Amino acid sequence: MENTETKDISPAVIRRLPRYYRYLDALLSDGIERISSTELSENMHVTASQIRQDLNQFGGFGQQGYGYNVEYLHDEIAKILGLDKGHTLIVVGTGRLGQALANYSHFSKLGFKIVGLFDVNEKVVGQTVNRLTVRHIDELPAFIESHGVDIAALTLPLSEAEKMARIVADCGIKAIWNFAPVDLYSIEGVTVENVHLSESLMQLSYNLLNMK
Amino acid sequence: MENTETKDISPAVIRRLPRYYRYLDALLSDGIERISSTELSENMHVTASQIRQDLNQFGGFGQQGYGYNVEYLHDEIAKILGLDKGHTLIVVGTGRLGQALANYSHFSKLGFKIVGLFDVNEKVVGQTVNRLTVRHIDELPAFIESHGVDIAALTLPLSEAEKMARIVADCGIKAIWNFAPVDLYSIEGVTVENVHLSESLMQLSYNLLNMK
Repeated sequence: MENTETKDISPAVIRRLPRYYRYLDALLSDGIERISSTELSENMHVTASQIRQDLNQFGGFGQQGYGYNVEYLHDEIAKILGLDKGHTLIVVGTGRLGQALANYSHFSKLGFKIVGLFDVNEKVVGQTVNRLTVRHIDELPAFIESHGVDIAALTLPLSEAEKMARIVADCGIKAIWNFAPVDLYSIEGVTVENVHLSESLMQLSYNLLNMK
Repeated sequence: MENTETKDISPAVIRRLPRYYRYLDALLSDGIERISSTELSENMHVTASQIRQDLNQFGGFGQQGYGYNVEYLHDEIAKILGLDKGHTLIVVGTGRLGQALANYSHFSKLGFKIVGLFDVNEKVVGQTVNRLTVRHIDELPAFIESHGVDIAALTLPLSEAEKMARIVADCGIKAIWNFAPVDLYSIEGVTVENVHLSESLMQLSYNLLNMK
């Protein structure tokens, strides 16, 4: 896959791109066509020089006295992040969190299309969530093969996550979005993002304790 | 509030403490009493020297040839994070995500007790979720006043989040755990943690595009 543009962008900048994208997306929705690094920096609470440094890394779309073309920058970041390609996603574990993901329209706006929901619980299997029927986990391998799924969101208890990660990886899934309180490593050829809700809660606790 | 121990710990280390805590908590559950920095580094996929550096910052609990006392370290980190004090939490917006949070037993294990659920939707108000009755948002100010709530989790649409953040702040809430796709800043005297699920999804998209 050719993707020369992003070759030299540092991981730290890449980590910040989704946030830029979110702000630019909001500006676009508000009909704003251009923005200066100063204005963007006020919105985003980072320095203007950080913004210029970051955005210059992939081509410097800003122009002196004009600022950034919002739509152009938005679309370029989308390309770098691969959002322009669109992705298919399944949710494994259709409890409340899985259902929340299935119903979150924001993801589809970003090009992530949820195509399948899975569970083992007979009370949940067969139910309809956001126009999708929850399937039994036994159907997972055949489903992935026939639908060419990109991403599996695992909204599972701790005890199930590791095993299921291996199963979906064996089925050919290349990306796992893990919500169980465990870091899933070491599955060859699979990229994993772990969402650890309790860690941000602990951070809040620390902040509360150390407030002035 | 006296909290001299944490004075000199860098924010970067603080950011990593919840993760240490999670690993130590798992070790404790497995009945493991001590661990070397090397073993911990293999578990956590960070270097042993990073671990020693981090943990030495708050007193160096490790001993040459013995390693770390898991329970002691676990409890010390809990104190630094303020987990030993316990916290009360309300969920504002009892849709699927709010219900998922209300049902997540892991939070109570960490000392975060969910004491109230709120919504505006008449279909949801009056329902019982994990033994709590969902209250109408109109009851929020009186509830916060009488219960002394520490943290408000806002699981609200983008359009509602900012307004509700101000309302709970006016009621005396000092910490907001925000799930709407907006960064809540600039509310004086309130600490905010924003959980941006779509950003980790975008990161996955980038990783997928750039896999070897």
